[in-house]
Amino acid sequence: MRILVINPNTTASMTATIGECARAVAGPGATVEAVNPSSGPVSIESHFDDAMSVPGVLAEVAAGERDGVDAYVIACFGDPGLLAAREVAAGPVVGIAEAAMRTAAYLGRGFSVVTTLERTVGHTWDLARAYGLERHCLGVHATGIPVVELETDPAAYATVLGASRAALDADGSDVVVLGCAGMADLCARLQDDLGVPVVDGVAAAVVTARSIVELGLATSVRNEFAAPLQKMVGLPLG
Amino acid sequence: MRILVINPNTTASMTATIGECARAVAGPGATVEAVNPSSGPVSIESHFDDAMSVPGVLAEVAAGERDGVDAYVIACFGDPGLLAAREVAAGPVVGIAEAAMRTAAYLGRGFSVVTTLERTVGHTWDLARAYGLERHCLGVHATGIPVVELETDPAAYATVLGASRAALDADGSDVVVLGCAGMADLCARLQDDLGVPVVDGVAAAVVTARSIVELGLATSVRNEFAAPLQKMVGLPLG
Amino acid sequence: MRILVINPNTTASMTATIGECARAVAGPGATVEAVNPSSGPVSIESHFDDAMSVPGVLAEVAAGERDGVDAYVIACFGDPGLLAAREVAAGPVVGIAEAAMRTAAYLGRGFSVVTTLERTVGHTWDLARAYGLERHCLGVHATGIPVVELETDPAAYATVLGASRAALDADGSDVVVLGCAGMADLCARLQDDLGVPVVDGVAAAVVTARSIVELGLATSVRNEFAAPLQKMVGLPLG
Amino acid sequence: MRILVINPNTTASMTATIGECARAVAGPGATVEAVNPSSGPVSIESHFDDAMSVPGVLAEVAAGERDGVDAYVIACFGDPGLLAAREVAAGPVVGIAEAAMRTAAYLGRGFSVVTTLERTVGHTWDLARAYGLERHCLGVHATGIPVVELETDPAAYATVLGASRAALDADGSDVVVLGCAGMADLCARLQDDLGVPVVDGVAAAVVTARSIVELGLATSVRNEFAAPLQKMVGLPLG
Amino acid sequence: MRILVINPNTTASMTATIGECARAVAGPGATVEAVNPSSGPVSIESHFDDAMSVPGVLAEVAAGERDGVDAYVIACFGDPGLLAAREVAAGPVVGIAEAAMRTAAYLGRGFSVVTTLERTVGHTWDLARAYGLERHCLGVHATGIPVVELETDPAAYATVLGASRAALDADGSDVVVLGCAGMADLCARLQDDLGVPVVDGVAAAVVTARSIVELGLATSVRNEFAAPLQKMVGLPLG
Amino acid sequence: MRILVINPNTTASMTATIGECARAVAGPGATVEAVNPSSGPVSIESHFDDAMSVPGVLAEVAAGERDGVDAYVIACFGDPGLLAAREVAAGPVVGIAEAAMRTAAYLGRGFSVVTTLERTVGHTWDLARAYGLERHCLGVHATGIPVVELETDPAAYATVLGASRAALDADGSDVVVLGCAGMADLCARLQDDLGVPVVDGVAAAVVTARSIVELGLATSVRNEFAAPLQKMVGLPLG
Repeated sequence: MRILVINPNTTASMTATIGECARAVAGPGATVEAVNPSSGPVSIESHFDDAMSVPGVLAEVAAGERDGVDAYVIACFGDPGLLAAREVAAGPVVGIAEAAMRTAAYLGRGFSVVTTLERTVGHTWDLARAYGLERHCLGVHATGIPVVELETDPAAYATVLGASRAALDADGSDVVVLGCAGMADLCARLQDDLGVPVVDGVAAAVVTARSIVELGLATSVRNEFAAPLQKMVGLPLG
Repeated sequence: MRILVINPNTTASMTATIGECARAVAGPGATVEAVNPSSGPVSIESHFDDAMSVPGVLAEVAAGERDGVDAYVIACFGDPGLLAAREVAAGPVVGIAEAAMRTAAYLGRGFSVVTTLERTVGHTWDLARAYGLERHCLGVHATGIPVVELETDPAAYATVLGASRAALDADGSDVVVLGCAGMADLCARLQDDLGVPVVDGVAAAVVTARSIVELGLATSVRNEFAAPLQKMVGLPLG
Repeated sequence: MRILVINPNTTASMTATIGECARAVAGPGATVEAVNPSSGPVSIESHFDDAMSVPGVLAEVAAGERDGVDAYVIACFGDPGLLAAREVAAGPVVGIAEAAMRTAAYLGRGFSVVTTLERTVGHTWDLARAYGLERHCLGVHATGIPVVELETDPAAYATVLGASRAALDADGSDVVVLGCAGMADLCARLQDDLGVPVVDGVAAAVVTARSIVELGLATSVRNEFAAPLQKMVGLPLG
Repeated sequence: MRILVINPNTTASMTATIGECARAVAGPGATVEAVNPSSGPVSIESHFDDAMSVPGVLAEVAAGERDGVDAYVIACFGDPGLLAAREVAAGPVVGIAEAAMRTAAYLGRGFSVVTTLERTVGHTWDLARAYGLERHCLGVHATGIPVVELETDPAAYATVLGASRAALDADGSDVVVLGCAGMADLCARLQDDLGVPVVDGVAAAVVTARSIVELGLATSVRNEFAAPLQKMVGLPLG
Repeated sequence: MRILVINPNTTASMTATIGECARAVAGPGATVEAVNPSSGPVSIESHFDDAMSVPGVLAEVAAGERDGVDAYVIACFGDPGLLAAREVAAGPVVGIAEAAMRTAAYLGRGFSVVTTLERTVGHTWDLARAYGLERHCLGVHATGIPVVELETDPAAYATVLGASRAALDADGSDVVVLGCAGMADLCARLQDDLGVPVVDGVAAAVVTARSIVELGLATSVRNEFAAPLQKMVGLPLG
Repeated sequence: MRILVINPNTTASMTATIGECARAVAGPGATVEAVNPSSGPVSIESHFDDAMSVPGVLAEVAAGERDGVDAYVIACFGDPGLLAAREVAAGPVVGIAEAAMRTAAYLGRGFSVVTTLERTVGHTWDLARAYGLERHCLGVHATGIPVVELETDPAAYATVLGASRAALDADGSDVVVLGCAGMADLCARLQDDLGVPVVDGVAAAVVTARSIVELGLATSVRNEFAAPLQKMVGLPLG
């Protein structure tokens, strides 16, 4: 089984980290490839960034379809282009916010999301509502760390840890969800330090995508998610 | 006051009709210009079409900003790129689904949306929920008419009329909302024939955008909708 | 076009201020008249006041109908008698709470309402829910200033300003809604001082009522809002 | 214990029937008096009727307070003036829609409301939502019988019975709620014929009001429902 | 009329107190008997305790059916086995959480629940949602007092009083609901000290069960709550 | 990894079928054992059956804990004892309704549940709401086939197929969820015949439980789901 993990931003170092985290949970039967578009935002921290990353994501999916990919993961916590990608792909497409939140719902009363910038908090709530998890999501907390500084800021871990502790107390939650693909490599250490389950969406999405394939399932093509007509003017996809 | 009405698809004849409908309600104090991107989908009937139209919409907004536009209307019932456009524009941005549904909420117990293809029904419900109007929206009904055939199919009016009548009865609604910018020119005739208010989103959005400017209001820049950082790679906007 | 702005309480000085704020946004094509019932509560700060103001509001609407009024605004943030007035009037009737909250929904992630007495907070939440805006309404905050003291208390502006700042921080909101018609004249100054959009319901309702008329729309008479039968005993209306 | 049952309309024959139904369940420890205002609508079938009945209801409550009444029932399925009456009365005030719906919630999966005119259906849904019972209320069905004809139309019983049977099937409900005080005397016969619980709000409200008094409880005066200030101009109450 | 009050835990001293509180409100026409299973948890403070108490509760109901009981109260705030008991009993079955919350909804804007251990808070929210009272329930607050120490801890009253005061302020509520049957005997004193209505579920459930019988109502047997088939293996009930 | 699949009813032939379906998707790294309690209901078709099966389920979990089991599946669509089992087990516990519905949410706009007896429909809706999937669940449809006849009724497959087709049309859904563990072996054939994804909860729960273990996650023990105190009287568990 081939799983394509798409980092919607153009930062290759982040793609590499995401790929490692994905491969660590993929298991022997699944091959994971991590890619990112060559054009688009270097990080996704606004509705604008989110929207502008989508054509790149869809081009990667279209390329994956030509290439025999079995399942896709969209590795940005805004889940950019998720519904459109489901129309393009024959196999399942899983967003990391969706997978992280749904996985967290199996693990306790409710979760707190710890994320990057304050301006992304509203979008996270929109996703929680869209996925039916607004009652399970007990709080969304910004650390103030920009996405690209997660890799470089030496205080990033301590800040995320502190924000997680504060969130658990303020929200009365019992699970932490990491609100950015760039936090994937902090997950195990945080779980050790916090003593509660910490869910990284990249890992959760990879095992979910694999599971859906193993179950013989894929996105329904009955109506809404049937393949879209090709009628682009001036926008060759992929 | 200058209002830019953006048709997110690339069909110029539809842009012309939308522009006429917009100007008919704009009033003496407002100048309306109707545009469409030169590249993108010829019509928007899927999540894929919706997503692929957004960069073109945002480029038109960016151009409008350089050009002194006061307010924007996004003239597709999927409201593509609405939140991202609010980050880019200084003045208000109004989507036609949002404006049509909110206007309809002043007029009765609840409305029925009459739209084009069945596959767009789910997205309309997502919008109704996002705008807090899921209880006011009593039904969404597809006519099966593709967007581009609204202009050419001689039976289009009769089909929309029949679907509206059936919707009012099935839903127990008392207002009809037209679920496509391409239906704007059918509005007055439908209202006469149906005997209930019929809301066209293009007209509703134009007067709403104008009103917000007249009230001295604009999108808040406090946090989520502040201008996004410029950090695109390989995607010059506009 | 003639718009009748009805102050549901009997305080004529407040009616005068409301009339000025209404005329300031009405535009050249609309004539605004502001009235109040001669009997009823001097201010509306309880469910009892609200209920007792309604016959006076409905009498003003009935008089307006005989007099050729095109649209009505009910200028009390409790929206007293709104649904009943829609049955009586041929043209649209807009409440200031409804218009303020719906307008605010175009401008940001969510709004805070700043209002007068603590005992009115529950009713404001009831309205937010009825209008489908309970997720957009992020908080309702009482200043403790009685309605009639808004005009006379020299500290009123500072109190409202302080409450607004506190509300924006506590709620994580990005828009302020003024929760009393008696605050209409504070709006522009507050917006300057706060740096976020501040919505006054009187102004918002006037432009909304005008817009609905311009769109050729009115309350549906299909069922619930058809004219009521005349069957009053001992209560001649108007 | 003295319970005052207020029929908000002016039809004395209906008040008499309501009084009989109320006394039939009041038990030995409670005295029931049934009254109606001398002015107001002869029946309540619109928002206008509802609003115009409220001053009369509140005058009866104010008179009851001077007279030592312990608890009040508002015997119209629209629950007109309920929240205002709670401010005026020291003891509990119970609306028949509220009591009927809450009682029905103890008895099965969900209930169907069978009511009079189609135009009242929306208001019933508003009440169900306000009371938190929108999921328990599985349908609201109009019989088309005007309130005052319930007493005189010889086919009324058969019509209500037929509508109830149809509602149980259409809604998948297992309880029927009678949506008008004028149906109170049909309750026992309907229950026999339908084989499911049938809840009359008059009876349900009387036993609920009595129970609240027996429990030593009354409306909270902490904030919202404290006694309102007296500040009416030209509207002496009671 | 015979009402059986079932304490789902095995602590006989608590059963005795519950029985006294129940008899104090039952009135002359109703006989109250209080029982508890001989096996099961000594107190109910977890989902495990709740689940393990249910067979004992159902055995008591089955015995009550053989013995001519008219109505049942399940006297634990988790309402264990409520829906199953409704299948077994011919007469009504009322849970104390359900009755307390529904009764509180008649008395004010919203209530705060004051309960025992923090780990039960989530379950109380689940019940509030199931009963449609999630908007009326403004907070659930743990005192940290284990159930069995309510009887023995001399500081219990002061702790509950303090927690109630804090809850009223933090939640902006105007009614207190006692979240444990073991607090029943604190109710009147708390109400005196707090100056707001305090609802004990045991008393509320007893008068509710009695009222339902007096109204001639019982659980519907149309579908979901019809008597279950007898098909137990190795588990003779009662 | 060892996964224990618990059939909550006592029908061994059904346990065998469930075990086969579970093993078919478990993959090489996981060992699946299927068990059922020796006492309890032979099938689960009522709240009573559900409640009476729980002690047996919890005894199997307790035995599994002593025996080194890594994860548990509760293989009845009512998810009996799920929250209590999470307190008892150190590893994850997954219910088949929960897993089926969450998995279906990845695959389309919304799903229809096709189940056994009409009386179980309400409970399925309760679960959909508890899991936040009431908007994704577009309908629950009973076939009228008792659980134990799924194995023996030669018309069972045709009935389930017909009910599924009707549900897809009536609900406008695009995914089918099988509402009984006893339907697990029909899944692949149904998917072929229907042309939409068909989700069997047994398979979905097994891969979900395995995935949670692979991710290094387990139920949080921070508060609500910490191990319960041992305080049973007369009910030795396991």
